[in-house]
Amino acid sequence: MDEVACLDPRCNPTQFFDLDGYEAIVHRNAGGNIRHALRDVLTLDRAFELNEIAIIHHTDCGALTSTDEQIRSHIKARVDKEHWAEVDAIEWGSMVNVEESVKEDVEWFRANPLVREELKRHCQGFVLDSQTGKVQRVDVE
Amino acid sequence: MDEVACLDPRCNPTQFFDLDGYEAIVHRNAGGNIRHALRDVLTLDRAFELNEIAIIHHTDCGALTSTDEQIRSHIKARVDKEHWAEVDAIEWGSMVNVEESVKEDVEWFRANPLVREELKRHCQGFVLDSQTGKVQRVDVE
Ligand SMILES: [Zn+2]
Ligand SMILES: [Zn+2]
Repeated sequence: MDEVACLDPRCNPTQFFDLDGYEAIVHRNAGGNIRHALRDVLTLDRAFELNEIAIIHHTDCGALTSTDEQIRSHIKARVDKEHWAEVDAIEWGSMVNVEESVKEDVEWFRANPLVREELKRHCQGFVLDSQTGKVQRVDVE
Repeated sequence: MDEVACLDPRCNPTQFFDLDGYEAIVHRNAGGNIRHALRDVLTLDRAFELNEIAIIHHTDCGALTSTDEQIRSHIKARVDKEHWAEVDAIEWGSMVNVEESVKEDVEWFRANPLVREELKRHCQGFVLDSQTGKVQRVDVE
């Protein structure tokens, strides 16, 4: 199993999925954004032939607190204008709703032409409740 | 402190840096590649004003076992030709030498125009010996 989760310390799959850390490979980035984990999923799938992917976002995530536009403006304010295109090129991955963002990520993954068909069918999304520590599967389609 | 480390289960900074998981934010991707962590560093720096970045690669890393070209060929073999450009566009981040890759990542980070100057000065690189669990700082320039 490969897990893609937010890097928030509360969102640690080895804890809430009760894994010992060796059963699963855990990619962690801001928000648990699948787009930014695609390289890893593809290289790991090549090396180990993954059988499952879990995408885990969580309530109270920092990615819910600002928009891409706010992040871009903030960074542009201290960066030379000649590099603004680089700021615009980054997919910042802000979220509006955590369940929606999980759904979108699962759908994006399943629609991605670089992913093995069988792996697409074994991609699931979850929302962690940061208060209770409970994880709920998100129904997609 | 923000840490960028390989997602290999042996390369877990909360273990070898003796952190309780709440002192540090840990981004984990294949190899511990800083390029693929830039979005996170920038958004986290915006939210928390980071004071340190540690880049940690490790001996015996999977990223040392194949070249970008091998990964690309492998994926192209099962992907429709119309999507080969997407395969080529991904920076796969294969490594030849783990110390060199840490050095290159630190240098890349320090040269990146989107990163705050002060944060650049507080970026350090480390190599974890996967056998002994010892972490060694890599001197850069
Ligand atoms: Zn989060
Ligand atoms: Zn590794």
